[in-house]
Amino acid sequence: MIKAGIVGATGYTGAELLRLLVNHPQVEVSMITSRAEKGVAVSNLYPSLRGRCDIEFCEPDVAQLASCDVVFFATPHGVAQSMMAPLIAKGTRVVDLSADFRIKDIATWELWYQQAHACPELVEQAVYGLPEVNREQIVNAQLVACPGCYPTATQLALIPLLEKGLVDPTRLIANAASGVSGAGRQAKVDNLMAEVTDSYKAYGVAGHRHLPEIEQGLREVQAAGAVPAEMTFVPHLLPMIRGIQVTAYAELTSSDAIDLQALFAERYEQESFVDVMPAGSCPQTRWVKGSNQCKIAVHQPQGRNTVVVLSVIDNLCKGASGQAVQNMNLMMGFEETMGLEQVALLP
Amino acid sequence: MIKAGIVGATGYTGAELLRLLVNHPQVEVSMITSRAEKGVAVSNLYPSLRGRCDIEFCEPDVAQLASCDVVFFATPHGVAQSMMAPLIAKGTRVVDLSADFRIKDIATWELWYQQAHACPELVEQAVYGLPEVNREQIVNAQLVACPGCYPTATQLALIPLLEKGLVDPTRLIANAASGVSGAGRQAKVDNLMAEVTDSYKAYGVAGHRHLPEIEQGLREVQAAGAVPAEMTFVPHLLPMIRGIQVTAYAELTSSDAIDLQALFAERYEQESFVDVMPAGSCPQTRWVKGSNQCKIAVHQPQGRNTVVVLSVIDNLCKGASGQAVQNMNLMMGFEETMGLEQVALLP
Amino acid sequence: MIKAGIVGATGYTGAELLRLLVNHPQVEVSMITSRAEKGVAVSNLYPSLRGRCDIEFCEPDVAQLASCDVVFFATPHGVAQSMMAPLIAKGTRVVDLSADFRIKDIATWELWYQQAHACPELVEQAVYGLPEVNREQIVNAQLVACPGCYPTATQLALIPLLEKGLVDPTRLIANAASGVSGAGRQAKVDNLMAEVTDSYKAYGVAGHRHLPEIEQGLREVQAAGAVPAEMTFVPHLLPMIRGIQVTAYAELTSSDAIDLQALFAERYEQESFVDVMPAGSCPQTRWVKGSNQCKIAVHQPQGRNTVVVLSVIDNLCKGASGQAVQNMNLMMGFEETMGLEQVALLP
Amino acid sequence: MIKAGIVGATGYTGAELLRLLVNHPQVEVSMITSRAEKGVAVSNLYPSLRGRCDIEFCEPDVAQLASCDVVFFATPHGVAQSMMAPLIAKGTRVVDLSADFRIKDIATWELWYQQAHACPELVEQAVYGLPEVNREQIVNAQLVACPGCYPTATQLALIPLLEKGLVDPTRLIANAASGVSGAGRQAKVDNLMAEVTDSYKAYGVAGHRHLPEIEQGLREVQAAGAVPAEMTFVPHLLPMIRGIQVTAYAELTSSDAIDLQALFAERYEQESFVDVMPAGSCPQTRWVKGSNQCKIAVHQPQGRNTVVVLSVIDNLCKGASGQAVQNMNLMMGFEETMGLEQVALLP
Repeated sequence: MIKAGIVGATGYTGAELLRLLVNHPQVEVSMITSRAEKGVAVSNLYPSLRGRCDIEFCEPDVAQLASCDVVFFATPHGVAQSMMAPLIAKGTRVVDLSADFRIKDIATWELWYQQAHACPELVEQAVYGLPEVNREQIVNAQLVACPGCYPTATQLALIPLLEKGLVDPTRLIANAASGVSGAGRQAKVDNLMAEVTDSYKAYGVAGHRHLPEIEQGLREVQAAGAVPAEMTFVPHLLPMIRGIQVTAYAELTSSDAIDLQALFAERYEQESFVDVMPAGSCPQTRWVKGSNQCKIAVHQPQGRNTVVVLSVIDNLCKGASGQAVQNMNLMMGFEETMGLEQVALLP
Repeated sequence: MIKAGIVGATGYTGAELLRLLVNHPQVEVSMITSRAEKGVAVSNLYPSLRGRCDIEFCEPDVAQLASCDVVFFATPHGVAQSMMAPLIAKGTRVVDLSADFRIKDIATWELWYQQAHACPELVEQAVYGLPEVNREQIVNAQLVACPGCYPTATQLALIPLLEKGLVDPTRLIANAASGVSGAGRQAKVDNLMAEVTDSYKAYGVAGHRHLPEIEQGLREVQAAGAVPAEMTFVPHLLPMIRGIQVTAYAELTSSDAIDLQALFAERYEQESFVDVMPAGSCPQTRWVKGSNQCKIAVHQPQGRNTVVVLSVIDNLCKGASGQAVQNMNLMMGFEETMGLEQVALLP
Repeated sequence: MIKAGIVGATGYTGAELLRLLVNHPQVEVSMITSRAEKGVAVSNLYPSLRGRCDIEFCEPDVAQLASCDVVFFATPHGVAQSMMAPLIAKGTRVVDLSADFRIKDIATWELWYQQAHACPELVEQAVYGLPEVNREQIVNAQLVACPGCYPTATQLALIPLLEKGLVDPTRLIANAASGVSGAGRQAKVDNLMAEVTDSYKAYGVAGHRHLPEIEQGLREVQAAGAVPAEMTFVPHLLPMIRGIQVTAYAELTSSDAIDLQALFAERYEQESFVDVMPAGSCPQTRWVKGSNQCKIAVHQPQGRNTVVVLSVIDNLCKGASGQAVQNMNLMMGFEETMGLEQVALLP
Repeated sequence: MIKAGIVGATGYTGAELLRLLVNHPQVEVSMITSRAEKGVAVSNLYPSLRGRCDIEFCEPDVAQLASCDVVFFATPHGVAQSMMAPLIAKGTRVVDLSADFRIKDIATWELWYQQAHACPELVEQAVYGLPEVNREQIVNAQLVACPGCYPTATQLALIPLLEKGLVDPTRLIANAASGVSGAGRQAKVDNLMAEVTDSYKAYGVAGHRHLPEIEQGLREVQAAGAVPAEMTFVPHLLPMIRGIQVTAYAELTSSDAIDLQALFAERYEQESFVDVMPAGSCPQTRWVKGSNQCKIAVHQPQGRNTVVVLSVIDNLCKGASGQAVQNMNLMMGFEETMGLEQVALLP
């Protein structure tokens, strides 16, 4: 049994992390921090955990956190970078669910997140925690930067095409839609039930923070010398809690027939958490609700040049906390699937 | 007061038509047909109409229908074409909400709807009922073929760009999403609450019947000699009842700066039911729920070449029955907005 | 045309009032106040009103408000009472949608609302705006206190039984459920989509502010000398926006057979907005969504002594703004149904 | 590892049973029957099970079923009774999730289910599978009749009061509400998303089949000689998938102060799946979504005589398949909580 600490567990990714970790056979959650809820029993905030998690929120304390075998950050951006240096210095392994260490180019990060980066010196050593691309590096990493929810679903949809250079990298489109839990547990009028349910909208069309992360990730799998991937990314808000669906569009550069189904099936054959569906499928977000799966289907409508890739994940699980546990499993030498065998809650 | 008949009013477009017509100051609904519900009070099936519509469903009878000033077909495809010839022969004016007379090319219709067309001789004279394009023809038409829901939202989004030839007509994408009322009031497991709510999926990726209708409509507004519009159309199912949102993507052919906002504003300046939102807007489907409005916003993310147009309608209103009433108003010489002044139900 | 002013129109009852008034044939909305949104176009906050309501929110000013023919308060409790005296002094007619003037006993009001009443001298002259009970008084009232949403649905369900003294007044139960719009448009974590949807709960079991209002209303229709009505009232929160359903339970005091259906039908025969459904019905909230109707059904399960009355309204319409317009119509001498003919949005 | 067979696994309780059993450490699902889906891969119908359950639906065959260590019936009523005799004769242990063996009085069963009982001779030996009441009998039972969903939530709410004879047994009321998964996976217009979502209604007021089951269960825990429990039971349909909430009302027979909180806490102290919440709580259905918990809170509003008990379960889990696994664990000598440690999916 290892000891895990969670910084900032009052939000939805924190709650999801607790849901997964209390049933993980090799993990004991020994410390959960929240300045706002200090002294409050975790099960008071999340009655679903009554009898399963009997500790209280405490003040975040780096020294104490450093005594954990692994520390998760489930905080808004800016927090992890402010506490990271001493933890890394003490040898603690860290899984950061926030955006703080995802973007390699500091200027890009500062542009999109509109603040100075407080710990640029650790960005380079941080490993981007998409196991389907970086598994070996994750195993040996001390600091893993978990991908964002949209980036996870979008990259998994497009990686097989970009690795092989089959599509025009300058004409990529990702039409994405997410449930409202992605907006977090903050008191905002815009996220009230009466504002969000029974409705649908695009948002962030002018530029969403996940765009540079997606472009960086796609460029890393392109062959050397390829024209860098460039994407139009339009997120939408769904009237439901959990789930992301990405409909990605790409233009084939050759009119030669390609077996796209085989391409995707082979690329993800060894992956426990990526399921390439049979040809003709349209994955539903409910098929992965509460599970760590990503389900993908690839289409070529009317045999024209536009490839359509459909990708679904649970934004809180494979899109955040499930992927964090997957990364932890790799870092700690556990089975990659340990504690992540949940079947989606259907219906 | 004119007399209106409705064929097939047991479905959702029929119910919506009744909601609008019982408050229309110039219309009396004198006949509502349904084989299945013959003899049943309409208000029995739709208790919302108790005290407002006191007639019973009756057997469809062409002679009686012909005595109406206008007849609406709110039927599945195939029905209107089987009853149309005698009605037209008797001079009755008809608004067909079904797909029967939308597609000009009979072979195309038969290919997509998988049956022989029962009344090809009247297809040519049918006017496609999109007032924003065909207003003058509608005024004088005897038979109006109301556009489909997706085609309405998609065409209104792209027409300004295609009329001016500003985008590559072979790289059009419409990522569309609809509430479940679009699937109709049929007992199918796939449309059960427990299957549809709290989930999201694409469907019909290989080819949706609205695709040829959209392509036909877009081609008609292109300049003579232009390369014919070709579209990738991917519909999605939303966990809500009413509303369609289309996110359309098109590639500008020139890198010269274009004032897209002004282009759209001018194109729809005189239109009562198309509202071009201020720059930067993201229209929400709830802003048009229960109203006949289409709200549109145009974006050019990151100043790149891809134009993104957002368009929302209520699929049952501007996408079906509201547009049918709008067409009827034009045909009968009423104010185009008569009976269509409802403000969206918000929240 | 009369001029109407609305104080506090940024919330949901304000938005609903605007939806109704912009289509009312005898009303011009001339003034809409909001301190927080001063100078903002109303249609900016509620894009559904673009082109239909072109004024801006302004600072509430009693002198200006007094120039209106009627002023609506759509404010949290405490506001109307602080502005009421000068308006009444100037002869302006007022419809207050808040709780400020509903409770006749000042001590009771102060106990439940936990503050001193700022205008106790006007409480006596305020008329409780339930037209089905107080129509004549409303016609002549200068100040009408609109009933709360739960009280409207609950009183209409039980009045026929209590007027006749048929049930034990000390064993009344109202199990009520409301959509989340009843909680208002305030930024609270508890009302976030991710907290409320896909879930159901009771709340306020220890005592909801609508309880004393309901008991007061029921006692007023009891015969002189009857044991005063006493109720157990348990509200619940529904995962939807609009609609209240009350399931009321009462014990018949006599075991003689009573024709409950006839009792209810006769009581509400002349009422435009109360629809007694056929025996055996179970009214659905969607049957009244967006309409000013209350639909009621009465049951006597297993022929036992417990009467079950089912009552549904749209909490924002008959439960708030629709009833306010109904009261205004009575006060102004308009047809009681004017501007309230909307048919429910179904589906 | 034991071998389990499931008869009729195409419905929602079947799917839920599979979700639980594929992760149960001591169970291998060796046979899943469905006449309609014979030959179809289970994971084809439930893609959430891809890679986790690789067998096909087969024809139900009693001989084969008898070779299982335990057989679950997740079928509509009438099926289990038609296949039960030979299974019991061969010594197979059976957990029946249907209503076939719940009601001890055959005439009562036949009255409420409107058909002749095909296997009355086994009704007596069937043990009613509510472990919180009948644990010892379940351990030794060959045939367990799992309680219905409403009966589970309602009985757990009222048992502590009735065991002690503290309330008037003739004035019991259960106002219950369920998500739509309780209606099963059948193609009915009434259960379509567009009919059910965004609405709320009572149903079955004249008499729901769970009423006699509840009354039977309550009477069994009453002291000898007590007046038999009689209930008014009004179920309602919630616009969500999973979850039952019961608000039970009972009249205290004595005006002496009773510590209701202590009463409930003590009654369920040893129960793993009944959680008595702190005083003042209002349990939410989402707190138990996907888990086998029942959360209960007891209130005495205004200190009056009416006790209000709030009880929530997941209708598919503790209300059906989770309770079935709990019963199986008891029958097989496993830990009662084995395979049932899932934490609710929150948010």
